[in-house]
Amino acid sequence: MTQYRVGVIGGGQLARMMIAPASNVGIELKVLAEQENSSAKLATTVVGDFTDIDTVLEFAKSVDVVTFDHEHVPIAVLEHLEQMGISVQPPSRALVHAQNKLVMRRALDKFGAPNPIWSAVSTVNELDEFIKLHGPEVVVKTPIGGYDGKGVRVVNTSEQVLDWLSEPLLVSFGGQLLVEQKVKFKRELAQLSARNQSGEFVSWPVVETRQQNGVCSEVLSPAPNMSTETSGRAMQIAKLISESLGVTGTLAVEMFETETGELLVNELAMRPHNSGHFTIEGSVTSQFEQHLRAVLNLPLGKTDPLKPIAVMANVLGVSDSKSFMDNYSQVMASFPQAKIHSYGKSPRMGRKLGHVTVVGEDIDRCLQEAQEARDQLIK
Amino acid sequence: MTQYRVGVIGGGQLARMMIAPASNVGIELKVLAEQENSSAKLATTVVGDFTDIDTVLEFAKSVDVVTFDHEHVPIAVLEHLEQMGISVQPPSRALVHAQNKLVMRRALDKFGAPNPIWSAVSTVNELDEFIKLHGPEVVVKTPIGGYDGKGVRVVNTSEQVLDWLSEPLLVSFGGQLLVEQKVKFKRELAQLSARNQSGEFVSWPVVETRQQNGVCSEVLSPAPNMSTETSGRAMQIAKLISESLGVTGTLAVEMFETETGELLVNELAMRPHNSGHFTIEGSVTSQFEQHLRAVLNLPLGKTDPLKPIAVMANVLGVSDSKSFMDNYSQVMASFPQAKIHSYGKSPRMGRKLGHVTVVGEDIDRCLQEAQEARDQLIK
Repeated sequence: MTQYRVGVIGGGQLARMMIAPASNVGIELKVLAEQENSSAKLATTVVGDFTDIDTVLEFAKSVDVVTFDHEHVPIAVLEHLEQMGISVQPPSRALVHAQNKLVMRRALDKFGAPNPIWSAVSTVNELDEFIKLHGPEVVVKTPIGGYDGKGVRVVNTSEQVLDWLSEPLLVSFGGQLLVEQKVKFKRELAQLSARNQSGEFVSWPVVETRQQNGVCSEVLSPAPNMSTETSGRAMQIAKLISESLGVTGTLAVEMFETETGELLVNELAMRPHNSGHFTIEGSVTSQFEQHLRAVLNLPLGKTDPLKPIAVMANVLGVSDSKSFMDNYSQVMASFPQAKIHSYGKSPRMGRKLGHVTVVGEDIDRCLQEAQEARDQLIK
Repeated sequence: MTQYRVGVIGGGQLARMMIAPASNVGIELKVLAEQENSSAKLATTVVGDFTDIDTVLEFAKSVDVVTFDHEHVPIAVLEHLEQMGISVQPPSRALVHAQNKLVMRRALDKFGAPNPIWSAVSTVNELDEFIKLHGPEVVVKTPIGGYDGKGVRVVNTSEQVLDWLSEPLLVSFGGQLLVEQKVKFKRELAQLSARNQSGEFVSWPVVETRQQNGVCSEVLSPAPNMSTETSGRAMQIAKLISESLGVTGTLAVEMFETETGELLVNELAMRPHNSGHFTIEGSVTSQFEQHLRAVLNLPLGKTDPLKPIAVMANVLGVSDSKSFMDNYSQVMASFPQAKIHSYGKSPRMGRKLGHVTVVGEDIDRCLQEAQEARDQLIK
């Protein structure tokens, strides 16, 4: 054995950000990308269709383990790989809970992780009933295919999701929609953790995530004004989910902290996650290195912070032409302490083009610097 | 402009360690490697002979700036590139001082950087004279081609370098050897710094380097028990050299700290250097990111330490078969706080295969952990 080999399905920025730790640690990274000029181009060995069994199988044979940049690979494809004896991490039986929000809600109920009030609905009547009981506003979600606010609508009448409740869309979602109470939350949190096949489990400090238009805007680590009791509870929820579902690799549990101090699970991601980008500079072991170690069933690294505070701000495209790079040099000069990440993507309105991380001692200063650097990059 | 493009000549571990920051920052890295399976394979776009003008020129045309993993590219080749209008950083007029130790000694004398007593000799008589004056032991060096203890001999009679003083070897060294007093030093230090074309200059804390058989074994950052006055002097020496020679990129100045507290320059490297590997985890900006920024004439990043202490231990091959990877998993388990770097090289006796960095609060503990992790990797 001279090198461990990890295959990542998907060539987005998450695969790209695995390149650095793979190169440092000495892991050979291969990427199956959907297109030629993906963000993870440097490590791309195959360009092809991740829904095609033969393409994925051929790719999988060149690595020791298959893992993911996104959760859109059909479970049938993954089960096929597993039947062929290929190591898929996280395994399909775990990953299905990140792919399908109804499957997730049912599982969380089963082993007692805190869900908001929810229901599966397939008709206007069922949805109206739920709105009557838990409205006036409720959140309707497509069980599969949503991300970054897509596939989520806040509604007060079933009229507003008639398209989703009609053929053929409803069938494409599996015949049901997920409807949830609109949680009155104080803020949103995310608990990042990692687990390997041997059952070793580690977690990072719980973070506060701030959203704009349903997309993550800033992440504050650790979440400010957090009681030890609440942060301990967040970690326990992540551990329960990780162990109950048999998750391997990095797991992000997005949660609501309600006005009454409850924690309720919002979403799951079984891969490195936007809420954990701060770990690249902020932690002894980043979520990307940890994911690679975990899916290879290697021992996990320490998650201790290197500085008391880390703040990350996402850089989203403001138009289809405004390049990230136009103000790059100027921002580097103004913020020599900021770590500016570019994903090497062409600009598009609302697209995640990069992020900025600032670590330090003072949360207000870190937040201000990260935001200002981000704002200058796209101004 | 969507990406800055840097071309690195040489596919060793220094080029490899540029991959991570290039990928993070959004710089396109291309490597001209001497062989197919180099350490920097992932970023290699050309495999060819770096002494061949056409090969290097063709490579150079695909990037915005050419820089180096080593100092062995013939100056004539670099001058040719420069005449063609290609940006070579550091420029040939600076780099010649890292290639040729006699040229370096003369320049340092000229602008007043502290040399040990030295002379250029081309005959047995000249060398005997120097030994008589400054012996009994002296250090003889080949002006070009040496590294990691190669091309250096400690002698007390010219008999011991008769081969170097004879044709055709002497001619291959440029007709002269460098002879230096054997400095009575307390310890060896290295001052890492970076400078861009605009003249911006930054430095990291001066470090202590420990050698075994002429090869770097451990690096302690910052150098323990260092007075502010001495560390200030080390920085000033690096600044003087960097500015006087017009260095761009990372510069490592290896120095002796003598028993009387003097600092004397031993060697120069105009590229990321083994003494600066600790900066990957230990500093806001690593020497590799800084080198890329500096050669592109981008503003430089902060060099503040993330933790008070960083210790690096080199992993050298102990045989031609013992793989770095055999104990990898076990060492990860025993040292979850250690950052283990593998260069993806096949094992060879004495070869630099990787390194281990531990950051923390306590120097003794960091040193012990880095050494133990290193020792276990190759045991």
